Amino acid sequence: MDAKTLMFLALFHLIFLLSPSIINASSTRKIRVRKPCKSLVFYFHDIIYNGKNSHNATAVIVGAPAWGNKTILASQNHFGDLVVFDDPITLDNNLHSTPVGRAQGFYVYDKKDIFTAWLGFSFVFNSTEHKGSLNFAGADPLMNKTREISVIGGTGDFFMARGIATLMTDSFEGEVYFRLRTDIKLYECW
Amino acid sequence: MDAKTLMFLALFHLIFLLSPSIINASSTRKIRVRKPCKSLVFYFHDIIYNGKNSHNATAVIVGAPAWGNKTILASQNHFGDLVVFDDPITLDNNLHSTPVGRAQGFYVYDKKDIFTAWLGFSFVFNSTEHKGSLNFAGADPLMNKTREISVIGGTGDFFMARGIATLMTDSFEGEVYFRLRTDIKLYECW
Amino acid sequence: MDAKTLMFLALFHLIFLLSPSIINASSTRKIRVRKPCKSLVFYFHDIIYNGKNSHNATAVIVGAPAWGNKTILASQNHFGDLVVFDDPITLDNNLHSTPVGRAQGFYVYDKKDIFTAWLGFSFVFNSTEHKGSLNFAGADPLMNKTREISVIGGTGDFFMARGIATLMTDSFEGEVYFRLRTDIKLYECW
Repeated sequence: MDAKTLMFLALFHLIFLLSPSIINASSTRKIRVRKPCKSLVFYFHDIIYNGKNSHNATAVIVGAPAWGNKTILASQNHFGDLVVFDDPITLDNNLHSTPVGRAQGFYVYDKKDIFTAWLGFSFVFNSTEHKGSLNFAGADPLMNKTREISVIGGTGDFFMARGIATLMTDSFEGEVYFRLRTDIKLYECW
Repeated sequence: MDAKTLMFLALFHLIFLLSPSIINASSTRKIRVRKPCKSLVFYFHDIIYNGKNSHNATAVIVGAPAWGNKTILASQNHFGDLVVFDDPITLDNNLHSTPVGRAQGFYVYDKKDIFTAWLGFSFVFNSTEHKGSLNFAGADPLMNKTREISVIGGTGDFFMARGIATLMTDSFEGEVYFRLRTDIKLYECW
Repeated sequence: MDAKTLMFLALFHLIFLLSPSIINASSTRKIRVRKPCKSLVFYFHDIIYNGKNSHNATAVIVGAPAWGNKTILASQNHFGDLVVFDDPITLDNNLHSTPVGRAQGFYVYDKKDIFTAWLGFSFVFNSTEHKGSLNFAGADPLMNKTREISVIGGTGDFFMARGIATLMTDSFEGEVYFRLRTDIKLYECW
């Protein structure tokens, strides 16, 4: 190689040397692949306290609007009812299956004209397969067949996780029991 | 090229081959460029139920301290009042403009000595321009001209989004109506 | 160099040129280093209003189940009590040290059989050392010696932060005062 070619190659290399950091610096602008790094499906079961079922209730009304109370979900699509829950999580749709963890948090019905809620909760796992937790937040327009909320973080096996959870009402019995199917897709795994 | 030069180049290439993964491995430590990948401005309008305005109220007190009730915001800077809302989102500051979505969630006044709140809510879009949702959480010291909260996730058009939302009180009429201007800057887009 | 060698080198370079973006495109699947980019330790102090301590209470019950009230934490492990707080943050475990900020938000006791809570809150800093906020969410099984929740975002000095906060009950005096040690480890810094 002569000097010119070497110089040219050196320059070329310099560009490569810099390019990864340039690309990284602007990495938040890149188009990322929407392929989950982990996919999971769970069911959780919510039994609301109605004044008579304290032995098996897993959820309780703790906030209510002026026209509501703590043992019956309020009129106007439950607008203003705030419910706290600690629901069993199962791998299938059977309430009596061995739970793999607990869904803990709250939801609040936030609209007069239609059923819709806002959710903040965690899956706290305690099984041979999973230890740790996943944290969720988002709007749940529960009359839609599927709804998407955010996985905003995780701990243990789910350290720093982010993703999307798709909720589906799998069963709805009167105003006391419902079961949600939760399809979790993580797009950030550590 | 002679053997030496080839060897040298091969070694050089190997370094480049490794460097991107090295840089990636430590990518969480790099200084990232604080340039938004998306900027949006919206207004949302909160009309609190006061016992007389059920026809147009968009928010309702559902939790109150011992000294409060559900139709009047409590004394001591509303400390302890928990409000659930489903507010229209508009592109300009006119309450009567066609909404592009709904702001749904809750806020809670959390301080005795000064007006300040904590917010958890979503923008649920339903317009020709945007489908999907953005999820927010953070403290809102509402006496400050501008306040910053976190965009903790998103779905649909805002899949996996993260960023910062700057809140500004655009109007405040008695204790029934307020309007917030929300400047959203996303720094993680997918 | 002859034409063949040049061609070979050009091809080789092309691979390098592409590799960083390939690696980036799949960056969500890479194994990331779990080394914090920032570590912080704080204490915060929660004094619950009990009807008599309004002069120094920093927290108040705003939601309660049917069997509860707003001045005494409910039976059944406080299941259903929703507490709003604005607690001082200190650098050591002394309630009377100069606060470096306020912990603002809420927690809700979400289980009948055992003490456990769900938390949504912010650290709002206002000291010479830190300006800005950190936002947190997660389950707090408070009978465990250590519990992990998510740092879901931040503003100011903690712009776009993500990480894990480890909570430890540092003191627990009757049902009025508790102090939490919070070890914050950020894994995403900007």
